[in-house]
Amino acid sequence: MPEVTSPFTPPAPATAAATAPTNGSIPAAGTSAEASPTPGAYGVGARFTLLPLTDRFVEVIIDALAVDRPAGLEVVTDDVSTFVRGTESDVVGYLTAVIARAGRTGVHTVAQVLLSRGCPGEVACEVADGVAFAPERLAPIPPTGLRAAAHWSLYPLHDGPDGDHMSAIYAAIDDARERGTLTRSEHFATRLDGDLADVLTTIGDAWLTVGRSVRHVATHATISLNSPSSPSTAGDR
Amino acid sequence: MPEVTSPFTPPAPATAAATAPTNGSIPAAGTSAEASPTPGAYGVGARFTLLPLTDRFVEVIIDALAVDRPAGLEVVTDDVSTFVRGTESDVVGYLTAVIARAGRTGVHTVAQVLLSRGCPGEVACEVADGVAFAPERLAPIPPTGLRAAAHWSLYPLHDGPDGDHMSAIYAAIDDARERGTLTRSEHFATRLDGDLADVLTTIGDAWLTVGRSVRHVATHATISLNSPSSPSTAGDR
Repeated sequence: MPEVTSPFTPPAPATAAATAPTNGSIPAAGTSAEASPTPGAYGVGARFTLLPLTDRFVEVIIDALAVDRPAGLEVVTDDVSTFVRGTESDVVGYLTAVIARAGRTGVHTVAQVLLSRGCPGEVACEVADGVAFAPERLAPIPPTGLRAAAHWSLYPLHDGPDGDHMSAIYAAIDDARERGTLTRSEHFATRLDGDLADVLTTIGDAWLTVGRSVRHVATHATISLNSPSSPSTAGDR
Repeated sequence: MPEVTSPFTPPAPATAAATAPTNGSIPAAGTSAEASPTPGAYGVGARFTLLPLTDRFVEVIIDALAVDRPAGLEVVTDDVSTFVRGTESDVVGYLTAVIARAGRTGVHTVAQVLLSRGCPGEVACEVADGVAFAPERLAPIPPTGLRAAAHWSLYPLHDGPDGDHMSAIYAAIDDARERGTLTRSEHFATRLDGDLADVLTTIGDAWLTVGRSVRHVATHATISLNSPSSPSTAGDR
């Protein structure tokens, strides 16, 4: 079923797996990791597709996906995309390492990335209505030396009938501006440019910033490296 | 700015361009085209990235984007994606033609597609709160003879505080099942398989079905053709 949950999905009862975030108190921003639900219980993860535009794509993809991964990170690849489940920092760190590994071949490579949180189910979410939890920040990711350009969309999907996610959205935009990755608004997307690590950190931190007040947040980005038609390729590879 | 509008964006005043859908009466499903707002006024369009995995990607992309387009369809390509604005049938028909043209080279080709409606602005939507409009169906698209596999996500973003989009969602799922393209639910996405035209029609008709009760609807799909690792390539090309 599509990811259809939105603010009007009827509240589901807390499952055993979801009791940590659904005990009646909404964790404050920056709540310690001990209080956080597990990635499986909260539906924290990603789907991505790595697309090196070369006749050697199979070898580039297999080599990139083989980067070291943190203990406990779940990675399942099929013919369309790769599913990743783990902590926010592990997921975004792994995506950065995989995309960077492909980008360092110098091949024009595009990655389609989806990050999702707050909807562990597929049609009906299994986290009680209105509960929102997210860590304060991602673990820092060292610069890759690869310039990236992205078209990014951010969808707050579940903050309850009296929710206010717009202040979190504007905070996320301000973070991107301060980080120097915010290039401009486009129709249906925002243009980001910068080091691949900064672009992915911008997207990941926005996902967390909104996720602290909105339970179900999905974000999509198309990230391009080494494009022959992009000013980004004038970067410091 | 990201596409951030969701059910909790404050209502914006109707703009001159949006008076057709915001005159106080919510058009019924199947309202005739004469009553429909323009694609520009309602924010009907797409962003897509065509990714042929070959050393010859520039030539394949340029050739595919050059397919005939309907009069009035706006197409703007940059180094990350291509923006398309026009009627729903023109947009989905053009996407099908472009992706099919690339797929007929036999090259493993992936297209990332975003369809959006109901948010002509970039942060704040400019269609009055709660107004929902969508045509009944897309114009039929002839089979391409190309097998496609897709990971699809559907986001209802704006149906007002008393909205009920779930019945529309389930209707869209039933349509996909009846069309024979619905393969299974995955984490964060739905797997679709079938002729490229059927896969894109499933995604486009779901966008319209939900769009008749939810004003702002975005849907993303990663569509793969000719994958060396996919059963879909055992199709009828």
